[in-house]
Amino acid sequence: MVSPRRLGAFLTFEGIDGSGKSTQARHLAETLSQAGHDVVLTREPGGSPGAEEIRNLLLHGDPDRWSAETELLMFTAARRDHVERTIRPALEAGKVVICDRFVDSTRVYQGITRGDLRGTVDALHALMIGLEADLTFLIDMNPGVAHARATKRIGSEARFENFGLELHATLRAGFLNLAHRTRRFRIVDGNRTEAEIAADVTRIAHGFLDTLE
Amino acid sequence: MVSPRRLGAFLTFEGIDGSGKSTQARHLAETLSQAGHDVVLTREPGGSPGAEEIRNLLLHGDPDRWSAETELLMFTAARRDHVERTIRPALEAGKVVICDRFVDSTRVYQGITRGDLRGTVDALHALMIGLEADLTFLIDMNPGVAHARATKRIGSEARFENFGLELHATLRAGFLNLAHRTRRFRIVDGNRTEAEIAADVTRIAHGFLDTLE
Repeated sequence: MVSPRRLGAFLTFEGIDGSGKSTQARHLAETLSQAGHDVVLTREPGGSPGAEEIRNLLLHGDPDRWSAETELLMFTAARRDHVERTIRPALEAGKVVICDRFVDSTRVYQGITRGDLRGTVDALHALMIGLEADLTFLIDMNPGVAHARATKRIGSEARFENFGLELHATLRAGFLNLAHRTRRFRIVDGNRTEAEIAADVTRIAHGFLDTLE
Repeated sequence: MVSPRRLGAFLTFEGIDGSGKSTQARHLAETLSQAGHDVVLTREPGGSPGAEEIRNLLLHGDPDRWSAETELLMFTAARRDHVERTIRPALEAGKVVICDRFVDSTRVYQGITRGDLRGTVDALHALMIGLEADLTFLIDMNPGVAHARATKRIGSEARFENFGLELHATLRAGFLNLAHRTRRFRIVDGNRTEAEIAADVTRIAHGFLDTLE
């Protein structure tokens, strides 16, 4: 068993829909659990009961009934709840928190796709949330392949997946731009087999966690 | 008919629960309509379809399931929608908008009753909303009488009315403090008959609207 670190570690996965980041987040959670870490795997939007209620409001009904700014406020309300109820308590208990999407998704999706809200996203995050990941994996992928994969999925997730190929390319460029100027990002080539990607992610995560012990 | 002013006028009513402000807001809307003004009467939380959806989420279920900060973000999301969809379009059409509660209620309720969030409320309002009323009526009332009146009401509004007498006194002091240092406030003595209060409100409103023509 690895002895728990009192401050915990907060690892996030980011990328366009269909990039395989959720699969990789799950895989890393299993690998680190097997290595003796106390792991909490969570996701956004949602991740706590109150945040899931807000997620439901965002997922159902006409997605365009709210403006980009109103939607941003609701995502931030959900994130505040998620951080208070799930993420911070786990970190304070010394756990490793792995989160599938966090504020970087908001920076790219709300910041780019619905008007230029980048400055507002950052100011709102600083005012109401504050927390940033310790380490962020960007699973970078050919947007054509990711888009084909994402559009195969059906169901309640459609709200967040139903974007065109051109938008996928814009979002990928947005994530890469953010990753290139943010030190906590690690860019992982997602155009390979799951096992190859997982091997990279595991190596990077172990290397990072070793620096904390 | 009064010719519409292109910028409209934004009048708000504030006060503790049971102060009679909703009655006075309705009365003023009727009086100004009869005088030829194009009036929109609205209220918070709510006031637009999207904001009503958020209001429902806040009204139903355990009110303590979200923190003060999460609730503040949801009130602000509802207000953003209300301003975008109802208030601003009406003002831009030159109408008189009368709103039963606006951000001053948030300043007093969220700012005082659930931890010290006054600075956060102001910063969030400046970042995401911006709009302030042109004129605000504070219907000031003996908290004992207001509390007895408010607790007689039953139903879905209970979420916002279910406060104790001591808290009513604290909230009244909070509204008075805010009113004394904010020029757009007019304090009206609510410890009188509806007709007496309405006469004061009508006189002040006509005086203010006359300065705009």
